[in-house]
Amino acid sequence: MPFQEAQTGLQAVLGDRLSRSKSDLAQHGRSETHFPLTPPEAVAYPETTAEVAGIVKACAEAACPVVGWGAGTSLEGHGLAVQGGLVVDFSRMDRVLEVRAEDMVAVVQPGVTREALNHELRATGLFFPVDPGANATLGGMASTRASGTTAVRYGTMAENVLALEVVLADGSVIRTGSGARKASNGYDLTRLMVGSEGTLGLITELTLKLQGQPEAVAAATCAFPRMGDAVDCVIATIQAGLPMARIEFVDGATVEAVNAYSGAEFPPMPHLLVEFHGSESSVAGDARFFGELVNDMNGQDFSWAERAEDRTALWQMRHHAYWAILASRKSAKAIVTDMCVPISRLAEAVELTAQDIAEAGLEGPILGHVGDGNFHAILLIDKDNPEHWQKAKRIADTMAERALAFGGTITGEHGIGMGKLHLMEAEHGLAWGVMEALKAALDPQGILNPGKMVRARPNGGNSPFPP
Amino acid sequence: MPFQEAQTGLQAVLGDRLSRSKSDLAQHGRSETHFPLTPPEAVAYPETTAEVAGIVKACAEAACPVVGWGAGTSLEGHGLAVQGGLVVDFSRMDRVLEVRAEDMVAVVQPGVTREALNHELRATGLFFPVDPGANATLGGMASTRASGTTAVRYGTMAENVLALEVVLADGSVIRTGSGARKASNGYDLTRLMVGSEGTLGLITELTLKLQGQPEAVAAATCAFPRMGDAVDCVIATIQAGLPMARIEFVDGATVEAVNAYSGAEFPPMPHLLVEFHGSESSVAGDARFFGELVNDMNGQDFSWAERAEDRTALWQMRHHAYWAILASRKSAKAIVTDMCVPISRLAEAVELTAQDIAEAGLEGPILGHVGDGNFHAILLIDKDNPEHWQKAKRIADTMAERALAFGGTITGEHGIGMGKLHLMEAEHGLAWGVMEALKAALDPQGILNPGKMVRARPNGGNSPFPP
Repeated sequence: MPFQEAQTGLQAVLGDRLSRSKSDLAQHGRSETHFPLTPPEAVAYPETTAEVAGIVKACAEAACPVVGWGAGTSLEGHGLAVQGGLVVDFSRMDRVLEVRAEDMVAVVQPGVTREALNHELRATGLFFPVDPGANATLGGMASTRASGTTAVRYGTMAENVLALEVVLADGSVIRTGSGARKASNGYDLTRLMVGSEGTLGLITELTLKLQGQPEAVAAATCAFPRMGDAVDCVIATIQAGLPMARIEFVDGATVEAVNAYSGAEFPPMPHLLVEFHGSESSVAGDARFFGELVNDMNGQDFSWAERAEDRTALWQMRHHAYWAILASRKSAKAIVTDMCVPISRLAEAVELTAQDIAEAGLEGPILGHVGDGNFHAILLIDKDNPEHWQKAKRIADTMAERALAFGGTITGEHGIGMGKLHLMEAEHGLAWGVMEALKAALDPQGILNPGKMVRARPNGGNSPFPP
Repeated sequence: MPFQEAQTGLQAVLGDRLSRSKSDLAQHGRSETHFPLTPPEAVAYPETTAEVAGIVKACAEAACPVVGWGAGTSLEGHGLAVQGGLVVDFSRMDRVLEVRAEDMVAVVQPGVTREALNHELRATGLFFPVDPGANATLGGMASTRASGTTAVRYGTMAENVLALEVVLADGSVIRTGSGARKASNGYDLTRLMVGSEGTLGLITELTLKLQGQPEAVAAATCAFPRMGDAVDCVIATIQAGLPMARIEFVDGATVEAVNAYSGAEFPPMPHLLVEFHGSESSVAGDARFFGELVNDMNGQDFSWAERAEDRTALWQMRHHAYWAILASRKSAKAIVTDMCVPISRLAEAVELTAQDIAEAGLEGPILGHVGDGNFHAILLIDKDNPEHWQKAKRIADTMAERALAFGGTITGEHGIGMGKLHLMEAEHGLAWGVMEALKAALDPQGILNPGKMVRARPNGGNSPFPP
């Protein structure tokens, strides 16, 4: 058994920070969604890069699977050790190593959460903008190429990670990128690692771009009679070059759930939630211009959240929408879908998805990051009703197929993990074979998060090219 | 001889669009800078992706080198067939295939130049922002991860290519990315190909992000007594979150050359050239705020280019600075250096570089994209003076070493090509070995632009991992 073979070496590196306690194993076998409990054989709590390198070396010698673990907030079962082996929990590598205010850069360990980083930055006038909602770790966010409400303005993790330190499959340590804002200095290994879901290496340090706290912020909500009007308003806003910091869509069902959960009183119609960042004068101008567009597109109930606490309440409401929707139906579980399309197809994609959900007889409020063409349906199902499961999975797969037919992607921000592996060939065709060749080149034994991202190869390391 | 073996197959694909004329060979053996004439054995002029695939297949069977060619404007000899073989000239694949205004996306063939694309877009209210100065092809710009004056606002080619069609080393064709604005759908093959300088595949189609023409544009110049003041002004501007579309630095020597060349009358001091894009009100506000910062930082001679033609003249002057500098000294040749550092080290890096140049007794005006920490010295040398060559190369290498010591990179935008291969190990260390493993996985015979980017491997395809 690979893990048993690795165990002595791992204990030499970790001492009692190699845990096999039942609670630890169970805690690292859970996922936020519907995947069955999949406990690993052990959990490691490294404190340094050298320890991570030692862990991977010991595992490489024994061909033992190694799976990274951040905050466990992923929605597609990324952290599940489906082929056994070791989970590496980065919670003890949680230090902000350096903040260089002039360069607007922070260097962090992978276990720092985005909220912890922003807390640390509060006196600097800077902040880290990527906001997936959950208080995920930055290592996990990089590994899954997370994004969220602010990507329309500040980009995803792909645009906000400048440099990485990575432990490779044989335990060697590399650095990718640099402190420079741009480079044309060879293959973009940083961007190859970001989004690779721990299958090419384990991230042990990140250099992140920071942003200046804007002088002024304005947030607003407005209702639209039809989804299509809301999307038209967004398209006009983007084409006008208005620099929205956030532009979110929620459908009528989401609004009703949020009203019930937070005691709000929004009309039960599709809404846009927007935020502008800038100087006092630019935000005022942008807000005025946006108000005119809303009028042109039949928007109603347009209202600005003037005070900081009103804005916080607004975005908390948005972030809590998932919980509000779950609470709207007792003892329900949720399957959260994710698709991303060119914005010209967004209204159609949302409407067809709503139809699919209605026809299946399920409830599934829809919400999303409309500026990116990215949305989610929160499909509510009875835990013990196998028919519900099947219907929900059918809807998720139909959404993915439609995303591809519309020129988009099966996942805008939730990643592949366990949940979307079966869709990779449809999305990538031959290019999936290229991913397999890269995986075989960098992890010939297939020990890094095995069972994810690529097809299993019977003889790991012999990469037929292209397959 | 590999080319001779491939020739029959190539002729079957290309007919008389396979050229071996002396002028064609010479034209595709030149570079913009100091590399010796290196004619290939033949030049191919494909018109379709299928032809490119056929070309690469024929070359793969004969292990014949294949080197892509755009407009030939690269500064590091990227397109030189240093191991013989075939140059693939994309000038006949120069069609804009599709403009989707609602999605702000254009689909183009690789031989379309950036100016041709923007000409085609002029009636749409949209534009493609990446601007390296030269009228390069978009395929070439993607291959070298080009950037330029607008990267500070709109990003480099890495941020502006959404999707690619690529012919791989065995002639198979893949698609990377999609029409979606973001994705977490597997390894980021688009970003792996962008900047790979034709060593992993040949780009045959690009899907590019477009931007809305801003409602208002304001450009300005201002002089500073010291370089350090200019950089402090830029840092303050960035930290305040002012959305500059361009912020360029030129030193006093560049200003003198430009004055002589264009008949301008700027004071011979360091200058910043800036541009803001936005709504009328936001640009006015940003400009006012910037004016205050300039005042705080000892700026002088602050003046706005109010009219569109004045702005065009301003940026043409900047784009022609290279020619102005060359013209400032009769029969001189130029070696153009390129380095990129964290902005906190920029003033020091520029000042030390100016010292190095003065100590070597050379002339070398300095200019750059100061918002990105990226700058160039245009080293003027006598063509026939070998001592000049040596001194210039010493300065270029010192700049590269300093870039690394300052936490930056050896090249912000000019790429590796022939000119910086000897610096790759210093920049990347073990990570260069990872690049070699990727190259071996995707191009096991080493036929794609051989002699570039990675060390030659005696037994191509047997990738020791990691080296």
